[in-house]
Amino acid sequence: MRNLKAFYMLAALLLLSVAGVTQQNPPRAVPEYTSDGQMKLPSHYREWIYLTTGFDMSYSEAAMQMDHRMFDNVFVNPEAYRAFQETGKWPENTMLVLEGRRAADKGSINKRGNYQAGNTMGIEVHVKDTRFPGGWAFFAFGDGTTAKMIPVARDCYSCHLEHGAVDTTFVQFYPTLLPVAKDKGTIRSSY
Amino acid sequence: MRNLKAFYMLAALLLLSVAGVTQQNPPRAVPEYTSDGQMKLPSHYREWIYLTTGFDMSYSEAAMQMDHRMFDNVFVNPEAYRAFQETGKWPENTMLVLEGRRAADKGSINKRGNYQAGNTMGIEVHVKDTRFPGGWAFFAFGDGTTAKMIPVARDCYSCHLEHGAVDTTFVQFYPTLLPVAKDKGTIRSSY
Repeated sequence: MRNLKAFYMLAALLLLSVAGVTQQNPPRAVPEYTSDGQMKLPSHYREWIYLTTGFDMSYSEAAMQMDHRMFDNVFVNPEAYRAFQETGKWPENTMLVLEGRRAADKGSINKRGNYQAGNTMGIEVHVKDTRFPGGWAFFAFGDGTTAKMIPVARDCYSCHLEHGAVDTTFVQFYPTLLPVAKDKGTIRSSY
Repeated sequence: MRNLKAFYMLAALLLLSVAGVTQQNPPRAVPEYTSDGQMKLPSHYREWIYLTTGFDMSYSEAAMQMDHRMFDNVFVNPEAYRAFQETGKWPENTMLVLEGRRAADKGSINKRGNYQAGNTMGIEVHVKDTRFPGGWAFFAFGDGTTAKMIPVARDCYSCHLEHGAVDTTFVQFYPTLLPVAKDKGTIRSSY
């Protein structure tokens, strides 16, 4: 009888414990697609691991024709980040999210320089998945929550393939990952 | 006898389950101090929730006397972020971390604008803890992993008190939190 009581108490504890895991751990992030092959925007990417921010970056000498300046914030899903820390390599289902934000200048007490204001202005996701040719694909989201894959002929693929420091990704611009890739020996020799 | 076996199996499952939680969940972030009152740098703040990045921001009209440009990245501990999402308020033990990074310009394939390169250049932590006068304290870390509290007479306290959109914090510069504070009605009426 005492064993039975202990059994039920343990069963209750076990259930509570499992419930606790469910509550505290966000669901494992895996790329999701619609039935017609569009990618669904990962809904909680802002709670993923932050990699870096660029300001008005451009890979072309020509000035961009924009009436405003831009920040780009980069996030990666936590599982991929942890794998990279351990191996210097991106695992299957890695998702790198590039989020544009308008750069405001004067506002509140800010007198110089720029801060981020308002909603996102475009989101791009770079996904590692062996089902794609080359093993990676880009998706560009506008205001919607689904996006078609960017065709493989577009510049982003060839540029990332040619210049990405690690496996078509721009680890050369991610200050916390660059030393890891160097340490693990997974970086291109030119970096 | 069968109950006893089930009891041990459940006990084993419970232990595995607890071990799983320990492995998957990073330890709950709480401010830690040395015996002489210095704050210890939170070791995993880069895996916390990202709030925003500023570029060369200044609250003064005068140009800063620096030979380089700077990014400032802001992170908050996940528990505080979740509480803010639900209530628009910061809970006890909130830690906001401001990390400076040098802005590089030309490098790799970047031709225009700026990216973040190299190690951190100064880290400041803003901690909510009722033990401090006013309920918040600032700590400025140089290259070390502990820091003395910035004296209350310094400008950062009066400026945050006067201009912080929510509870002495600059939520006006955090694009994902500003709408939450407005929605929850916790923002200062001037914002």
